[in-house]
Amino acid sequence: MHITILGGAGFLGQKVAARLVRDGLPDGRRVTSLTLFDLAAPAVPEAAFPVHALAGDLVDLPGAAIPEDTDIVFHLAAVVSAAAEADYELGRRVNLRGTDAVIDACRKLARPPRLVFTSSVASFSGGQAARLEDDSRQLPANSYGAQKAAAELLLSDASRRGFLDAVSLRLPTIVVRPGRPNQAASSFFSAIIREPLLGLGTVLPVPRDFAVWVASPRRAVEWLLHAATLDTAAMGLDRSITPPGLSVTVAEMLAALDIVAPGASALVREESDPRIASIVGEWPACFMPRRAETLGFTAHEGLEDLVRAFVADDLAATRQDRLLR
Amino acid sequence: MHITILGGAGFLGQKVAARLVRDGLPDGRRVTSLTLFDLAAPAVPEAAFPVHALAGDLVDLPGAAIPEDTDIVFHLAAVVSAAAEADYELGRRVNLRGTDAVIDACRKLARPPRLVFTSSVASFSGGQAARLEDDSRQLPANSYGAQKAAAELLLSDASRRGFLDAVSLRLPTIVVRPGRPNQAASSFFSAIIREPLLGLGTVLPVPRDFAVWVASPRRAVEWLLHAATLDTAAMGLDRSITPPGLSVTVAEMLAALDIVAPGASALVREESDPRIASIVGEWPACFMPRRAETLGFTAHEGLEDLVRAFVADDLAATRQDRLLR
Repeated sequence: MHITILGGAGFLGQKVAARLVRDGLPDGRRVTSLTLFDLAAPAVPEAAFPVHALAGDLVDLPGAAIPEDTDIVFHLAAVVSAAAEADYELGRRVNLRGTDAVIDACRKLARPPRLVFTSSVASFSGGQAARLEDDSRQLPANSYGAQKAAAELLLSDASRRGFLDAVSLRLPTIVVRPGRPNQAASSFFSAIIREPLLGLGTVLPVPRDFAVWVASPRRAVEWLLHAATLDTAAMGLDRSITPPGLSVTVAEMLAALDIVAPGASALVREESDPRIASIVGEWPACFMPRRAETLGFTAHEGLEDLVRAFVADDLAATRQDRLLR
Repeated sequence: MHITILGGAGFLGQKVAARLVRDGLPDGRRVTSLTLFDLAAPAVPEAAFPVHALAGDLVDLPGAAIPEDTDIVFHLAAVVSAAAEADYELGRRVNLRGTDAVIDACRKLARPPRLVFTSSVASFSGGQAARLEDDSRQLPANSYGAQKAAAELLLSDASRRGFLDAVSLRLPTIVVRPGRPNQAASSFFSAIIREPLLGLGTVLPVPRDFAVWVASPRRAVEWLLHAATLDTAAMGLDRSITPPGLSVTVAEMLAALDIVAPGASALVREESDPRIASIVGEWPACFMPRRAETLGFTAHEGLEDLVRAFVADDLAATRQDRLLR
């Protein structure tokens, strides 16, 4: 299988690449080449098959990013929530025009590839009280979510037309993200676990009883690989899936942190930030993701496992990264 | 009030213009100028205020199309259903990029204008058995509907950001359209009334018990003008409205035709067309439009009135048009 990862330098892109190199695809089909595309050329993992790294602009997508014989495209490239809110044109360009460019590139291939797209919980609203069903409408309260919901529509339509074979995953807030804080409004949900584990203080911009729909990087990678290999025949017109995340409060996250690293949560300081709170405050805190379960997306592990997975997978590299810069 | 109609040469655009010239706005505010924009310069009605006609490409929207002091923009320009299905790029360009161009033009104005957008019943699916509620999801089964649903998302977001103040009307199939058959998959729903009234034969590509959600041009113009003047404060994040159309069968339409012009329905010949049937067969045949009623959109008149309105408003001009070409 020839696989491309757009956004291949990003954190999920690198994790999917590493997983493909290590274990191949979950259905046992052999990976024969991997192309990683991003604004800057992604790091290339050592692999038993050729791995190509390519830099460029998603909207002017070079043909080599999705070679003629590509079987699976992971489209993970995006301008994240707070950045798309701060710069309307940039968000629209990457999140919407970029998706159109990916559709156009897929149309040129000999056969329609599987296209795995990362949409987001931010494409919904409803806030703290919401418990959304699979047939709930997307009424986004931020430009990122609006662009993601629009891109889902275009990808479902492109699938119906046979240009590609899309599965859009509305990912929960990913916790714990490694590395540094980023421009996602949800960045602090990772920081309140990651920074204390590094011995660093960090700020919590919402109250401790704030509820959020989360998923671990490990689970997100599992879901992305399942989306790359599942049978889409049963999906009909609707190519979007809300995978089974966890609905947790900040207090529960900090309690799990303290189990793994006793006392660590003392490094988290509450300091309200209306700009951040107004974005994440609209995101639904809970979903009832029955369709994803029917389609074979695995259930989420508990919060303590989520914290331990970060320690096992990413803490050392994150610490190293901080020392180097 | 300075008003612009994009798609001002189209059938609804011309009717809205004529109505503004004759009666002004329904809330009594005075119209002080009208700009009509389309691919070819629209016909200019005689009026007590200046009317400007302008030709151009929606995507490269000239500044003069939406002058600095514009209060209300009707964005009616579109590539219709069968045409957008036949030419993917053209539909995407006009229906999606065109809407982005309108958003960008509105952002440049001194104050955010009211933007009345025509979305469509084609942005839903569900078919003959569907009875959709106001909170039903849009799962379009054609590219036109996907592009319209995506444009609704962008306009709701642009409203939230304060770039403009949008009301998107998901118009039913408009019956009776004057003039000639067009590239809309729904064109035949008008032809089966219009052509027999002209003494001409026409083809029915679906069975007589086929149900469809319709509205008359008179009612559509009422709704568009109401959308231009209603208070949007109560609409929240959701700027889209399904107005109260009529759910009718082809047989009921032909019965109403025969009341107005006895025996006329004999000119309608059943001849199945799978291409047309596959598009219109996905459109929901019935909605429960409670939100529109709450927001003051007027109820629909009966089918016999709908046929008589075509005879009164459009039959003579349609006959004249056929003789001239």
